[in-house]
Amino acid sequence: MTLKMTVEELGAFMAAEFPQVAADFAIDRLAQMEIDLRLQVEERHLRPGGTVSGPSMFSLADCAIYLAVLAMIGPQGLAVTTNGSIDFMRKPAAGKDIVAKCRLLKLGRVLAVGDVLMVSDGMDQPVARASMTYSIPPG
Amino acid sequence: MTLKMTVEELGAFMAAEFPQVAADFAIDRLAQMEIDLRLQVEERHLRPGGTVSGPSMFSLADCAIYLAVLAMIGPQGLAVTTNGSIDFMRKPAAGKDIVAKCRLLKLGRVLAVGDVLMVSDGMDQPVARASMTYSIPPG
Amino acid sequence: MTLKMTVEELGAFMAAEFPQVAADFAIDRLAQMEIDLRLQVEERHLRPGGTVSGPSMFSLADCAIYLAVLAMIGPQGLAVTTNGSIDFMRKPAAGKDIVAKCRLLKLGRVLAVGDVLMVSDGMDQPVARASMTYSIPPG
Amino acid sequence: MTLKMTVEELGAFMAAEFPQVAADFAIDRLAQMEIDLRLQVEERHLRPGGTVSGPSMFSLADCAIYLAVLAMIGPQGLAVTTNGSIDFMRKPAAGKDIVAKCRLLKLGRVLAVGDVLMVSDGMDQPVARASMTYSIPPG
Repeated sequence: MTLKMTVEELGAFMAAEFPQVAADFAIDRLAQMEIDLRLQVEERHLRPGGTVSGPSMFSLADCAIYLAVLAMIGPQGLAVTTNGSIDFMRKPAAGKDIVAKCRLLKLGRVLAVGDVLMVSDGMDQPVARASMTYSIPPG
Repeated sequence: MTLKMTVEELGAFMAAEFPQVAADFAIDRLAQMEIDLRLQVEERHLRPGGTVSGPSMFSLADCAIYLAVLAMIGPQGLAVTTNGSIDFMRKPAAGKDIVAKCRLLKLGRVLAVGDVLMVSDGMDQPVARASMTYSIPPG
Repeated sequence: MTLKMTVEELGAFMAAEFPQVAADFAIDRLAQMEIDLRLQVEERHLRPGGTVSGPSMFSLADCAIYLAVLAMIGPQGLAVTTNGSIDFMRKPAAGKDIVAKCRLLKLGRVLAVGDVLMVSDGMDQPVARASMTYSIPPG
Repeated sequence: MTLKMTVEELGAFMAAEFPQVAADFAIDRLAQMEIDLRLQVEERHLRPGGTVSGPSMFSLADCAIYLAVLAMIGPQGLAVTTNGSIDFMRKPAAGKDIVAKCRLLKLGRVLAVGDVLMVSDGMDQPVARASMTYSIPPG
Protein backbone atom coordinates (compact mmCIF):
# COMPACT_ATOMS: atom_id res chain seq x y z
CA MET A 1 0.00 0.00 0.00
CA THR A 2 1.14 3.50 -0.74
CA LEU A 3 -0.23 6.87 0.25
CA LYS A 4 -3.10 7.98 -2.00
CA MET A 5 -3.08 11.61 -0.83
CA THR A 6 -0.38 14.15 -0.01
CA VAL A 7 -0.32 16.59 2.90
CA GLU A 8 -1.47 19.30 0.51
CA GLU A 9 -4.35 17.22 -0.83
CA LEU A 10 -5.50 16.34 2.69
CA GLY A 11 -5.38 20.02 3.65
CA ALA A 12 -7.41 21.03 0.60
CA PHE A 13 -9.93 18.26 1.29
CA MET A 14 -10.37 19.42 4.89
CA ALA A 15 -10.76 23.06 3.89
CA ALA A 16 -13.45 22.13 1.36
CA GLU A 17 -15.36 19.55 3.41
CA PHE A 18 -14.88 20.67 7.02
CA PRO A 19 -14.52 24.46 6.86
CA GLN A 20 -15.65 24.79 10.51
CA VAL A 21 -12.63 22.95 11.86
CA ALA A 22 -10.00 22.86 9.12
CA ALA A 23 -8.19 25.90 10.54
CA ASP A 24 -7.80 24.17 13.91
CA PHE A 25 -5.40 21.58 12.56
CA ALA A 26 -2.05 21.33 10.80
CA ILE A 27 -0.35 18.18 9.52
CA ASP A 28 3.19 17.94 10.90
CA ARG A 29 4.08 14.62 9.32
CA LEU A 30 2.46 12.00 7.07
CA ALA A 31 3.65 8.47 6.43
CA GLN A 32 2.13 5.13 5.59
CA MET A 33 -0.46 4.30 8.25
CA GLU A 34 0.81 7.25 10.36
CA ILE A 35 0.15 10.94 10.83
CA ASP A 36 1.19 13.64 13.29
CA LEU A 37 -1.57 16.23 13.57
CA ARG A 38 -1.30 19.50 15.48
CA LEU A 39 -4.13 21.27 17.26
CA GLN A 40 -3.32 24.95 16.86
CA VAL A 41 -4.65 25.99 20.23
CA GLU A 42 -6.82 29.10 20.31
CA GLU A 43 -8.98 30.69 22.99
CA ARG A 44 -11.99 28.63 21.88
CA HIS A 45 -10.24 25.36 22.78
CA LEU A 46 -9.52 26.39 26.36
CA ARG A 47 -11.09 25.75 29.73
CA PRO A 48 -10.68 27.88 32.86
CA GLY A 49 -7.03 27.91 33.91
CA GLY A 50 -5.86 27.91 30.30
CA THR A 51 -6.03 24.17 29.79
CA VAL A 52 -7.16 22.61 26.50
CA SER A 53 -10.66 21.14 26.78
CA GLY A 54 -11.37 17.42 26.61
CA PRO A 55 -13.70 17.72 23.60
CA SER A 56 -10.95 19.63 21.72
CA MET A 57 -8.60 16.70 22.31
CA PHE A 58 -11.29 14.21 21.28
CA SER A 59 -11.77 16.22 18.10
CA LEU A 60 -8.02 16.21 17.44
CA ALA A 61 -7.80 12.42 17.84
CA ASP A 62 -10.87 11.86 15.69
CA CYS A 63 -9.51 14.08 12.93
CA ALA A 64 -6.05 12.51 13.03
CA ILE A 65 -7.41 9.01 12.50
CA TYR A 66 -9.80 10.23 9.81
CA LEU A 67 -6.96 11.87 7.87
CA ALA A 68 -4.72 8.82 8.29
CA VAL A 69 -7.49 6.67 6.78
CA LEU A 70 -8.14 9.11 3.93
CA ALA A 71 -4.45 9.29 3.13
CA MET A 72 -4.46 5.52 2.65
CA ILE A 73 -7.76 4.99 0.81
CA GLY A 74 -8.16 8.30 -1.00
CA PRO A 75 -10.96 10.87 -0.79
CA GLN A 76 -13.64 8.40 -1.82
CA GLY A 77 -16.76 7.90 0.25
CA LEU A 78 -17.57 9.08 3.73
CA ALA A 79 -15.89 7.20 6.53
CA VAL A 80 -17.70 7.73 9.84
CA THR A 81 -16.56 7.20 13.41
CA THR A 82 -18.41 4.30 15.00
CA ASN A 83 -16.80 4.56 18.40
CA GLY A 84 -13.94 5.88 20.42
CA SER A 85 -12.36 5.78 23.83
CA ILE A 86 -10.14 8.41 25.38
CA ASP A 87 -8.04 8.69 28.53
CA PHE A 88 -7.09 12.11 29.86
CA MET A 89 -3.89 11.70 31.82
CA ARG A 90 -2.26 15.05 32.47
CA LYS A 91 -3.10 18.71 32.32
CA PRO A 92 -1.85 20.13 29.01
CA ALA A 93 0.84 22.79 29.30
CA ALA A 94 -0.54 26.33 29.02
CA GLY A 95 0.11 28.15 25.77
CA LYS A 96 1.27 25.08 23.85
CA ASP A 97 -0.26 23.33 20.86
CA ILE A 98 -1.25 19.69 21.26
CA VAL A 99 0.38 17.22 18.87
CA ALA A 100 -1.37 13.92 18.14
CA LYS A 101 0.83 11.04 17.06
CA CYS A 102 -1.49 8.64 15.27
CA ARG A 103 -0.98 5.19 13.80
CA LEU A 104 -3.49 2.99 12.07
CA LEU A 105 -3.53 -0.45 13.67
CA LYS A 106 -6.01 -1.89 11.21
CA LEU A 107 -7.19 -0.82 7.79
CA GLY A 108 -9.75 -3.38 6.72
CA ARG A 109 -12.30 -3.38 3.97
CA VAL A 110 -15.08 -2.34 6.35
CA LEU A 111 -13.45 -1.09 9.57
CA ALA A 112 -10.33 0.90 10.38
CA VAL A 113 -8.85 1.28 13.86
CA GLY A 114 -6.32 3.88 14.92
CA ASP A 115 -4.72 4.95 18.13
CA VAL A 116 -3.34 8.31 19.12
CA LEU A 117 -0.97 9.62 21.75
CA MET A 118 -1.29 13.34 22.46
CA VAL A 119 1.46 15.53 23.92
CA SER A 120 1.83 19.23 24.61
CA ASP A 121 4.14 20.48 21.88
CA GLY A 122 7.77 19.78 22.78
CA MET A 123 6.92 17.69 25.85
CA ASP A 124 7.44 13.97 26.44
CA GLN A 125 4.68 12.90 28.81
CA PRO A 126 1.36 12.19 27.09
CA VAL A 127 -1.59 14.37 28.05
CA ALA A 128 -4.11 11.97 26.54
CA ARG A 129 -4.55 8.72 24.64
CA ALA A 130 -7.38 7.78 22.33
CA SER A 131 -8.47 5.05 19.96
CA MET A 132 -11.24 5.21 17.40
CA THR A 133 -12.94 2.89 14.94
CA TYR A 134 -14.06 4.15 11.55
CA SER A 135 -16.59 2.45 9.35
CA ILE A 136 -15.58 2.61 5.69
CA PRO A 137 -18.50 2.70 3.26
CA PRO A 138 -18.46 0.23 0.38
CA GLY A 139 -16.41 1.78 -2.45
CA MET B 1 -28.47 12.67 49.19
CA THR B 2 -30.30 15.70 47.88
CA LEU B 3 -29.52 18.06 45.05
CA LYS B 4 -27.07 20.76 46.08
CA MET B 5 -27.69 22.99 43.04
CA THR B 6 -30.77 24.03 41.08
CA VAL B 7 -31.14 24.30 37.32
CA GLU B 8 -30.66 28.05 37.63
CA GLU B 9 -27.53 27.70 39.74
CA LEU B 10 -26.02 25.21 37.30
CA GLY B 11 -26.78 27.57 34.41
CA ALA B 12 -25.16 30.50 36.20
CA PHE B 13 -22.12 28.38 37.08
CA MET B 14 -21.69 27.33 33.44
CA ALA B 15 -22.06 30.89 32.15
CA ALA B 16 -19.41 32.09 34.60
CA GLU B 17 -16.92 29.23 34.29
CA PHE B 18 -17.37 27.96 30.72
CA PRO B 19 -18.46 31.00 28.71
CA GLN B 20 -17.20 29.39 25.46
CA VAL B 21 -19.73 26.58 25.58
CA ALA B 22 -22.47 27.57 28.04
CA ALA B 23 -24.73 28.85 25.27
CA ASP B 24 -24.58 25.46 23.52
CA PHE B 25 -26.52 23.71 26.25
CA ALA B 26 -29.87 23.89 28.05
CA ILE B 27 -31.01 21.79 30.99
CA ASP B 28 -34.34 20.13 30.21
CA ARG B 29 -34.68 18.23 33.46
CA LEU B 30 -32.74 17.73 36.69
CA ALA B 31 -33.28 15.06 39.32
CA GLN B 32 -31.20 13.16 41.82
CA MET B 33 -28.35 11.46 39.96
CA GLU B 34 -30.01 12.36 36.62
CA ILE B 35 -30.04 15.17 34.10
CA ASP B 36 -31.43 15.72 30.60
CA LEU B 37 -29.19 18.14 28.73
CA ARG B 38 -29.97 19.61 25.31
CA LEU B 39 -27.41 20.54 22.67
CA GLN B 40 -28.94 23.55 20.94
CA VAL B 41 -27.62 22.71 17.51
CA GLU B 42 -26.07 25.55 15.50
CA GLU B 43 -24.11 25.69 12.28
CA ARG B 44 -20.83 25.26 14.20
CA HIS B 45 -21.87 21.80 15.45
CA LEU B 46 -22.55 20.43 11.97
CA ARG B 47 -20.69 18.29 9.49
CA PRO B 48 -21.30 18.15 5.74
CA GLY B 49 -24.80 16.85 5.08
CA GLY B 50 -26.19 18.69 8.09
CA THR B 51 -25.36 16.03 10.65
CA VAL B 52 -24.15 16.89 14.15
CA SER B 53 -20.41 16.24 14.55
CA GLY B 54 -19.03 13.50 16.77
CA PRO B 55 -16.98 15.88 18.93
CA SER B 56 -20.14 17.96 19.53
CA MET B 57 -21.87 14.86 20.88
CA PHE B 58 -18.82 13.96 22.97
CA SER B 59 -18.91 17.48 24.39
CA LEU B 60 -22.63 17.14 25.18
CA ALA B 61 -22.12 13.85 27.03
CA ASP B 62 -19.13 15.21 28.91
CA CYS B 63 -21.04 18.31 29.98
CA ALA B 64 -24.14 16.33 31.02
CA ILE B 65 -22.16 14.10 33.36
CA TYR B 66 -20.22 17.07 34.72
CA LEU B 67 -23.42 18.94 35.54
CA ALA B 68 -25.02 15.85 37.08
CA VAL B 69 -21.99 15.52 39.38
CA LEU B 70 -21.98 19.22 40.27
CA ALA B 71 -25.70 19.13 41.06
CA MET B 72 -25.00 16.39 43.61
CA ILE B 73 -21.76 17.66 45.19
CA GLY B 74 -22.12 21.41 44.75
CA PRO B 75 -19.82 23.85 42.95
CA GLN B 76 -16.81 23.01 45.05
CA GLY B 77 -13.54 21.97 43.47
CA LEU B 78 -12.75 21.09 39.91
CA ALA B 79 -13.88 17.68 38.78
CA VAL B 80 -12.00 16.54 35.67
CA THR B 81 -12.80 13.86 33.11
CA THR B 82 -10.33 10.99 33.36
CA ASN B 83 -11.77 8.94 30.54
CA GLY B 84 -14.70 8.29 28.30
CA SER B 85 -16.02 5.98 25.65
CA ILE B 86 -18.60 6.77 23.02
CA ASP B 87 -20.53 4.80 20.41
CA PHE B 88 -22.02 6.59 17.42
CA MET B 89 -24.97 4.53 16.24
CA ARG B 90 -27.18 6.51 13.90
CA LYS B 91 -27.03 9.68 11.86
CA PRO B 92 -28.73 12.47 13.85
CA ALA B 93 -31.84 13.93 12.23
CA ALA B 94 -31.18 17.17 10.35
CA GLY B 95 -32.35 20.36 12.01
CA LYS B 96 -33.01 18.78 15.41
CA ASP B 97 -31.40 19.40 18.77
CA ILE B 98 -29.70 16.45 20.47
CA VAL B 99 -30.97 15.53 23.93
CA ALA B 100 -28.68 13.64 26.31
CA LYS B 101 -30.35 11.55 28.99
CA CYS B 102 -27.73 11.11 31.68
CA ARG B 103 -27.68 9.10 34.88
CA LEU B 104 -24.89 8.79 37.40
CA LEU B 105 -24.10 5.13 38.05
CA LYS B 106 -21.56 5.87 40.75
CA LEU B 107 -20.81 8.90 42.85
CA GLY B 108 -17.89 7.94 45.03
CA ARG B 109 -15.55 10.01 47.13
CA VAL B 110 -12.88 10.00 44.42
CA LEU B 111 -14.52 8.85 41.17
CA ALA B 112 -17.91 9.39 39.56
CA VAL B 113 -19.21 7.43 36.58
CA GLY B 114 -22.12 8.41 34.39
CA ASP B 115 -23.70 7.11 31.25
CA VAL B 116 -25.62 8.97 28.60
CA LEU B 117 -28.02 8.07 25.84
CA MET B 118 -28.39 10.69 23.11
CA VAL B 119 -31.40 11.08 20.82
CA SER B 120 -32.43 13.58 18.17
CA ASP B 121 -35.12 15.71 19.83
CA GLY B 122 -38.47 13.93 19.71
CA MET B 123 -37.05 10.66 18.35
CA ASP B 124 -36.81 7.27 20.03
CA GLN B 125 -33.78 5.58 18.54
CA PRO B 126 -30.49 6.63 20.15
CA VAL B 127 -27.94 8.37 17.94
CA ALA B 128 -25.11 7.80 20.40
CA ARG B 129 -24.19 6.39 23.78
CA ALA B 130 -21.37 7.49 26.04
CA SER B 131 -19.94 6.87 29.47
CA MET B 132 -17.40 8.98 31.30
CA THR B 133 -15.44 8.86 34.54
CA TYR B 134 -14.79 12.03 36.51
CA SER B 135 -12.12 12.39 39.16
CA ILE B 136 -13.36 14.43 42.11
CA PRO B 137 -10.66 16.44 43.87
CA PRO B 138 -10.40 16.12 47.64
CA GLY B 139 -12.90 18.53 49.21
CA MET C 1 -38.85 -7.72 14.33
CA THR C 2 -39.60 -10.75 16.44
CA LEU C 3 -37.35 -13.10 18.36
CA LYS C 4 -35.84 -15.78 16.13
CA MET C 5 -34.64 -18.01 19.00
CA THR C 6 -36.11 -19.08 22.33
CA VAL C 7 -34.30 -19.34 25.66
CA GLU C 8 -34.04 -23.10 25.11
CA GLU C 9 -32.59 -22.70 21.62
CA LEU C 10 -30.02 -20.17 22.81
CA GLY C 11 -29.01 -22.53 25.61
CA ALA C 12 -28.62 -25.45 23.22
CA PHE C 13 -26.61 -23.28 20.82
CA MET C 14 -24.25 -22.19 23.61
CA ALA C 15 -23.78 -25.76 24.87
CA ALA C 16 -22.90 -26.93 21.36
CA GLU C 17 -20.71 -24.03 20.25
CA PHE C 18 -19.14 -22.75 23.48
CA PRO C 19 -18.87 -25.80 25.75
CA GLN C 20 -16.04 -24.16 27.74
CA VAL C 21 -18.27 -21.38 29.07
CA ALA C 22 -21.89 -22.44 28.54
CA ALA C 23 -22.21 -23.74 32.11
CA ASP C 24 -21.17 -20.34 33.48
CA PHE C 25 -24.33 -18.64 32.30
CA ALA C 26 -28.12 -18.88 32.67
CA ILE C 27 -30.72 -16.79 30.86
CA ASP C 28 -33.10 -15.18 33.38
CA ARG C 29 -35.21 -13.30 30.86
CA LEU C 30 -35.39 -12.78 27.10
CA ALA C 31 -37.34 -10.13 25.23
CA GLN C 32 -37.05 -8.22 22.00
CA MET C 33 -33.65 -6.47 21.98
CA GLU C 34 -33.18 -7.38 25.67
CA ILE C 35 -31.75 -10.17 27.78
CA ASP C 36 -30.95 -10.73 31.45
CA LEU C 37 -28.02 -13.10 31.76
CA ARG C 38 -26.73 -14.57 35.01
CA LEU C 39 -23.13 -15.45 35.79
CA GLN C 40 -23.39 -18.49 38.07
CA VAL C 41 -20.41 -17.60 40.18
CA GLU C 42 -17.97 -20.42 40.98
CA GLU C 43 -14.54 -20.52 42.56
CA ARG C 44 -12.87 -20.03 39.14
CA HIS C 45 -14.48 -16.60 38.72
CA LEU C 46 -13.15 -15.23 41.99
CA ARG C 47 -10.25 -13.07 43.04
CA PRO C 48 -8.68 -12.89 46.50
CA GLY C 49 -11.25 -11.67 49.00
CA GLY C 50 -14.05 -13.54 47.24
CA THR C 51 -14.81 -10.87 44.66
CA VAL C 52 -15.74 -11.72 41.07
CA SER C 53 -12.87 -11.00 38.68
CA GLY C 54 -13.00 -8.25 36.08
CA PRO C 55 -12.45 -10.61 33.14
CA SER C 56 -15.39 -12.75 34.37
CA MET C 57 -17.62 -9.66 34.22
CA PHE C 58 -16.26 -8.74 30.80
CA SER C 59 -17.07 -12.27 29.64
CA LEU C 60 -20.60 -11.99 31.07
CA ALA C 61 -21.25 -8.70 29.26
CA ASP C 62 -19.79 -10.02 26.01
CA CYS C 63 -21.93 -13.15 26.18
CA ALA C 64 -25.12 -11.23 27.05
CA ILE C 65 -24.80 -8.98 24.01
CA TYR C 66 -23.90 -11.92 21.78
CA LEU C 67 -26.99 -13.84 22.87
CA ALA C 68 -29.22 -10.79 22.49
CA VAL C 69 -27.98 -10.42 18.91
CA LEU C 70 -28.41 -14.13 18.14
CA ALA C 71 -31.94 -14.11 19.55
CA MET C 72 -32.81 -11.36 17.05
CA ILE C 73 -30.99 -12.59 13.93
CA GLY C 74 -30.97 -16.35 14.47
CA PRO C 75 -28.03 -18.75 14.69
CA GLN C 76 -26.70 -17.87 11.25
CA GLY C 77 -23.11 -16.78 10.79
CA LEU C 78 -20.50 -15.86 13.32
CA ALA C 79 -20.87 -12.45 14.88
CA VAL C 80 -17.59 -11.27 16.43
CA THR C 81 -16.89 -8.59 19.02
CA THR C 82 -15.02 -5.68 17.47
CA ASN C 83 -14.68 -3.64 20.62
CA GLY C 84 -15.88 -3.03 24.10
CA SER C 85 -15.54 -0.72 27.05
CA ILE C 86 -16.21 -1.54 30.67
CA ASP C 87 -16.39 0.42 33.92
CA PHE C 88 -15.94 -1.38 37.23
CA MET C 89 -17.77 0.64 39.85
CA ARG C 90 -18.27 -1.37 43.02
CA LYS C 91 -16.98 -4.54 44.62
CA PRO C 92 -19.45 -7.36 43.90
CA ALA C 93 -21.13 -8.86 46.98
CA ALA C 94 -19.48 -12.08 48.15
CA GLY C 95 -21.33 -15.30 47.40
CA LYS C 96 -23.79 -13.73 44.96
CA ASP C 97 -24.29 -14.36 41.26
CA ILE C 98 -23.88 -11.38 38.91
CA VAL C 99 -26.86 -10.50 36.75
CA ALA C 100 -26.32 -8.59 33.50
CA LYS C 101 -29.22 -6.54 32.20
CA CYS C 102 -28.54 -6.06 28.51
CA ARG C 103 -30.31 -4.06 25.84
CA LEU C 104 -29.39 -3.73 22.19
CA LEU C 105 -29.16 -0.07 21.23
CA LYS C 106 -28.54 -0.78 17.57
CA LEU C 107 -29.03 -3.80 15.38
CA GLY C 108 -27.83 -2.81 11.95
CA ARG C 109 -27.02 -4.85 8.89
CA VAL C 110 -23.29 -4.79 9.67
CA LEU C 111 -22.87 -3.65 13.28
CA ALA C 112 -24.79 -4.25 16.51
CA VAL C 113 -24.24 -2.27 19.72
CA GLY C 114 -25.43 -3.30 23.16
CA ASP C 115 -25.02 -2.01 26.66
CA VAL C 116 -25.12 -3.88 29.92
CA LEU C 117 -25.59 -3.00 33.56
CA MET C 118 -24.34 -5.61 36.01
CA VAL C 119 -25.57 -6.04 39.59
CA SER C 120 -24.92 -8.55 42.36
CA ASP C 121 -28.03 -10.72 42.45
CA GLY C 122 -30.77 -9.01 44.42
CA MET C 123 -28.90 -5.70 44.79
CA ASP C 124 -29.69 -2.31 43.28
CA GLN C 125 -26.37 -0.56 42.83
CA PRO C 126 -24.51 -1.58 39.67
CA VAL C 127 -21.13 -3.27 40.08
CA ALA C 128 -20.15 -2.67 36.47
CA ARG C 129 -21.28 -1.24 33.15
CA ALA C 130 -20.18 -2.32 29.69
CA SER C 131 -20.90 -1.70 26.04
CA MET C 132 -19.77 -3.78 23.09
CA THR C 133 -19.95 -3.64 19.31
CA TYR C 134 -20.46 -6.81 17.30
CA SER C 135 -19.69 -7.14 13.62
CA ILE C 136 -22.34 -9.21 11.84
CA PRO C 137 -21.05 -11.19 8.87
CA PRO C 138 -22.94 -10.87 5.60
CA GLY C 139 -25.82 -13.38 5.67
CA MET D 1 11.90 5.64 39.50
CA THR D 2 13.33 2.18 39.49
CA LEU D 3 11.70 -1.23 39.41
CA LYS D 4 10.60 -2.37 42.85
CA MET D 5 10.01 -6.02 41.85
CA THR D 6 11.85 -8.52 39.66
CA VAL D 7 10.33 -10.96 37.18
CA GLU D 8 10.74 -13.70 39.81
CA GLU D 9 9.05 -11.65 42.52
CA LEU D 10 6.13 -10.81 40.24
CA GLY D 11 5.74 -14.49 39.36
CA ALA D 12 5.76 -15.52 43.02
CA PHE D 13 3.25 -12.79 43.87
CA MET D 14 0.89 -13.97 41.10
CA ALA D 15 1.19 -17.62 42.14
CA ALA D 16 0.34 -16.71 45.74
CA GLU D 17 -2.41 -14.18 45.14
CA PHE D 18 -4.01 -15.30 41.85
CA PRO D 19 -3.56 -19.08 41.75
CA GLN D 20 -6.51 -19.47 39.36
CA VAL D 21 -4.79 -17.58 36.55
CA ALA D 22 -1.07 -17.43 37.37
CA ALA D 23 -0.30 -20.43 35.17
CA ASP D 24 -1.87 -18.72 32.16
CA PHE D 25 0.83 -16.08 31.97
CA ALA D 26 4.59 -15.76 31.57
CA ILE D 27 6.65 -12.59 31.71
CA ASP D 28 8.83 -12.29 28.59
CA ARG D 29 10.40 -8.94 29.43
CA LEU D 30 10.25 -6.36 32.19
CA ALA D 31 11.54 -2.79 32.10
CA GLN D 32 10.69 0.52 33.65
CA MET D 33 7.04 1.29 32.88
CA GLU D 34 6.98 -1.64 30.40
CA ILE D 35 6.23 -5.33 30.37
CA ASP D 36 5.77 -8.04 27.73
CA LEU D 37 3.36 -10.67 29.02
CA ARG D 38 2.58 -13.94 27.27
CA LEU D 39 -0.73 -15.77 27.36
CA GLN D 40 0.22 -19.44 27.22
CA VAL D 41 -2.74 -20.52 25.16
CA GLU D 42 -4.55 -23.66 26.28
CA GLU D 43 -7.79 -25.32 25.24
CA ARG D 44 -9.72 -23.30 27.85
CA HIS D 45 -8.81 -19.99 26.15
CA LEU D 46 -10.19 -21.02 22.76
CA ARG D 47 -13.38 -20.43 20.84
CA PRO D 48 -14.75 -22.58 18.00
CA GLY D 49 -12.31 -22.54 15.11
CA GLY D 50 -9.32 -22.51 17.45
CA THR D 51 -9.22 -18.78 17.98
CA VAL D 52 -8.36 -17.21 21.35
CA SER D 53 -11.46 -15.81 23.07
CA GLY D 54 -12.02 -12.10 23.62
CA PRO D 55 -12.27 -12.40 27.41
CA SER D 56 -8.93 -14.25 27.45
CA MET D 57 -7.33 -11.31 25.66
CA PHE D 58 -9.05 -8.86 28.02
CA SER D 59 -7.65 -10.86 30.93
CA LEU D 60 -4.16 -10.78 29.40
CA ALA D 61 -4.25 -7.00 28.95
CA ASP D 62 -5.63 -6.47 32.45
CA CYS D 63 -2.93 -8.65 33.99
CA ALA D 64 -0.13 -7.02 31.98
CA ILE D 65 -1.03 -3.54 33.19
CA TYR D 66 -1.50 -4.79 36.75
CA LEU D 67 1.97 -6.36 36.77
CA ALA D 68 3.55 -3.29 35.20
CA VAL D 69 2.04 -1.16 37.99
CA LEU D 70 3.12 -3.60 40.71
CA ALA D 71 6.66 -3.73 39.33
CA MET D 72 6.84 0.04 39.76
CA ILE D 73 5.11 0.52 43.12
CA GLY D 74 5.83 -2.79 44.84
CA PRO D 75 3.42 -5.41 46.19
CA GLN D 76 1.73 -2.99 48.57
CA GLY D 77 -2.01 -2.54 48.57
CA LEU D 78 -4.60 -3.73 46.14
CA ALA D 79 -4.78 -1.84 42.87
CA VAL D 80 -8.11 -2.42 41.13
CA THR D 81 -9.16 -1.89 37.52
CA THR D 82 -11.64 0.99 37.26
CA ASN D 83 -12.18 0.73 33.52
CA GLY D 84 -10.90 -0.55 30.25
CA SER D 85 -11.49 -0.45 26.54
CA ILE D 86 -10.45 -3.05 24.01
CA ASP D 87 -10.45 -3.32 20.21
CA PHE D 88 -10.35 -6.72 18.57
CA MET D 89 -8.78 -6.27 15.16
CA ARG D 90 -7.72 -9.59 13.68
CA LYS D 91 -8.30 -13.27 14.27
CA PRO D 92 -5.39 -14.66 16.33
CA ALA D 93 -3.27 -17.28 14.57
CA ALA D 94 -4.21 -20.84 15.56
CA GLY D 95 -1.83 -22.62 17.90
CA LYS D 96 0.13 -19.51 18.86
CA ASP D 97 0.52 -17.79 22.20
CA ILE D 98 -0.60 -14.17 22.44
CA VAL D 99 2.04 -11.66 23.52
CA ALA D 100 0.94 -8.38 25.12
CA LYS D 101 3.33 -5.45 24.81
CA CYS D 102 2.35 -3.10 27.60
CA ARG D 103 3.54 0.37 28.55
CA LEU D 104 2.37 2.55 31.39
CA LEU D 105 1.39 5.98 30.10
CA LYS D 106 0.68 7.39 33.52
CA LEU D 107 1.61 6.32 37.02
CA GLY D 108 0.04 8.84 39.34
CA ARG D 109 -0.55 8.81 43.05
CA VAL D 110 -4.17 7.71 42.61
CA LEU D 111 -4.59 6.47 39.02
CA ALA D 112 -2.41 4.52 36.61
CA VAL D 113 -3.10 4.15 32.89
CA GLY D 114 -1.55 1.59 30.59
CA ASP D 115 -1.98 0.54 27.03
CA VAL D 116 -1.33 -2.80 25.43
CA LEU D 117 -0.80 -4.10 21.92
CA MET D 118 -1.40 -7.82 21.49
CA VAL D 119 0.11 -9.99 18.73
CA SER D 120 0.10 -13.67 17.94
CA ASP D 121 3.57 -14.87 18.91
CA GLY D 122 6.05 -14.12 16.14
CA MET D 123 3.62 -12.06 14.08
CA ASP D 124 3.66 -8.33 13.33
CA GLN D 125 0.04 -7.31 12.89
CA PRO D 126 -1.78 -6.65 16.17
CA VAL D 127 -4.75 -8.88 17.01
CA ALA D 128 -6.04 -6.51 19.67
CA ARG D 129 -5.39 -3.26 21.51
CA ALA D 130 -6.48 -2.37 25.01
CA SER D 131 -6.12 0.36 27.60
CA MET D 132 -7.00 0.17 31.26
CA THR D 133 -7.07 2.47 34.26
CA TYR D 134 -6.11 1.21 37.69
CA SER D 135 -7.01 2.88 40.94
CA ILE D 136 -4.15 2.77 43.42
CA PRO D 137 -5.22 2.64 47.07
CA PRO D 138 -3.64 5.13 49.47
CA GLY D 139 -0.33 3.64 50.65
